[in-house]
Amino acid sequence: LDAAPQRSFGDLLSARVQARQSQIVLGVDPDPSALWPDAAAPDERPAAKRSPAELTAVRVLAHCRALIDATAQECVAVKFQLACFERLGAAGWSALEELIAYARGRELLVIADGKRGDIPVSASAYAQALFAGFSAPDGPVRGLEADLATVNPLLGSETVKPFVEAARARGAGVLALVRTSNAGASDVQDLPLADGRLVWERLADIVRELGADGVGASGLSDVGAVLGATEPVHLERARELMPQAVFLLPGVGSQGGRVESLAGAIAAGPLSEPHASALVTASRSIAGAHVVGAGSPAQAARAQARRLREQAWSLV
Amino acid sequence: LDAAPQRSFGDLLSARVQARQSQIVLGVDPDPSALWPDAAAPDERPAAKRSPAELTAVRVLAHCRALIDATAQECVAVKFQLACFERLGAAGWSALEELIAYARGRELLVIADGKRGDIPVSASAYAQALFAGFSAPDGPVRGLEADLATVNPLLGSETVKPFVEAARARGAGVLALVRTSNAGASDVQDLPLADGRLVWERLADIVRELGADGVGASGLSDVGAVLGATEPVHLERARELMPQAVFLLPGVGSQGGRVESLAGAIAAGPLSEPHASALVTASRSIAGAHVVGAGSPAQAARAQARRLREQAWSLV
Repeated sequence: LDAAPQRSFGDLLSARVQARQSQIVLGVDPDPSALWPDAAAPDERPAAKRSPAELTAVRVLAHCRALIDATAQECVAVKFQLACFERLGAAGWSALEELIAYARGRELLVIADGKRGDIPVSASAYAQALFAGFSAPDGPVRGLEADLATVNPLLGSETVKPFVEAARARGAGVLALVRTSNAGASDVQDLPLADGRLVWERLADIVRELGADGVGASGLSDVGAVLGATEPVHLERARELMPQAVFLLPGVGSQGGRVESLAGAIAAGPLSEPHASALVTASRSIAGAHVVGAGSPAQAARAQARRLREQAWSLV
Repeated sequence: LDAAPQRSFGDLLSARVQARQSQIVLGVDPDPSALWPDAAAPDERPAAKRSPAELTAVRVLAHCRALIDATAQECVAVKFQLACFERLGAAGWSALEELIAYARGRELLVIADGKRGDIPVSASAYAQALFAGFSAPDGPVRGLEADLATVNPLLGSETVKPFVEAARARGAGVLALVRTSNAGASDVQDLPLADGRLVWERLADIVRELGADGVGASGLSDVGAVLGATEPVHLERARELMPQAVFLLPGVGSQGGRVESLAGAIAAGPLSEPHASALVTASRSIAGAHVVGAGSPAQAARAQARRLREQAWSLV
């Protein structure tokens, strides 16, 4: 792997976290049957000419814009769940591209959450899709230009490397799954190995090894880890194994994780912005805050994002 | 899991393999800089109005149609590498949808090779994208309607289950990664466990367990496994662990695997069509056969697919 560019992703993230005073990631995983009613009103153009997928994509786009508008000032990044856009086909992919530009216009970092992983030649193709695109005979084809993308390391370190190379070349970063937030994550990730460790600890090694050359002046690397906030018991051990990695911590809220229990995720080394080492991501608990709380969807989402931001900031 | 429908995917596959006398899967992973020149000529519409991604998608579509035309009679299925379409954005997704319909029109089964995997709620969204779609308030949104989809089981059995449920409901199937074809697959998949087994053997358990209720009259299940043809030493053990699973065997040709060494992959139990238990998939060695062989791209591809078909058929 080439060394990191002068300004690595860790430095960019540290600066943004400092500027926003937030380590909150807005998770965007729109459910077409639970969109904000005011935001996602029907399009004015005649419906007969558009497919249900296209009509749904228009509403999803409006909903997500309103969600981003409501919470941008409390968040440092937006994480797009690619599955929720893929299920709308080409119209969903176009909506995703529009939303990425929209989030960037609000000075939010963009996380493409696709958990991709494949043999190296295909991993390179995914990396083109997620980051800078590629040069085709017909001209430059743009990628999603994500700042971070989630990847699945089951196929081994060599298959994470193409993502890291593509990200590093443009000052972006990669987040590899290490110990996920779902209830059944232990099934494979917690299997005890013959050497006394657990499977996820080997995944953590991959993160540390691939990220070693991507540590910027901030002290943070451009290869990070996804670690479920649902099992804080793993976080201190994960931090030992990956002292300079950015941790993305999903599972707060609807999956049962609590921000207060995440202190072990904060990196202990000398960092320009320790908060940046632990990003807390919440999706349904923000977008659906009005279902259990007071106010309009936008008001409830903003209040929930602010609450999470304040709780997370107090971890350091 | 619900029991399989009266006609499970294993039965459909067995019938198709029998009808075609082929267990060859055409891998479609178009590289825009290596398209067949005759097939992928520039579109006649004015280029200025279309983006490089759209222009490239038009060529990719033409190339893939020609590739399918050339080899359809030698193959039972087409496997689309989703990364190669995603990197063309919305235009790529539309091309993929068109190609799936095209392959189906040639009576080929369709494998969506996206190696998806996520927490259950997101796995369900991916399954909607890959299989039957879903009902949105604006009407039914179609999915890719794949006959098979590849999935990544790192997040555990509960995260493969939504794919199996969505597939089984429509007589389709799922292929979970068990031991992949890349050189570095051993990194994680071959880690020795404390109980004396290897990580991939636990992944094989997941395939067997989830597939137990999906075995049709053919004797084959609707939950199969991806096993690299590059390391045949694993195949006999894999067959012990997954006696009724369909194996998809990538890695023949450009990755170094040889069809002759795949006999261990054939299921030993009573099957209506034993050949259907081992599908051999080849991509670059078919599409690029003219580079090393005689004839036009189409002629060389057909000859290579026929050669693979005959070699594989002789395994039983």
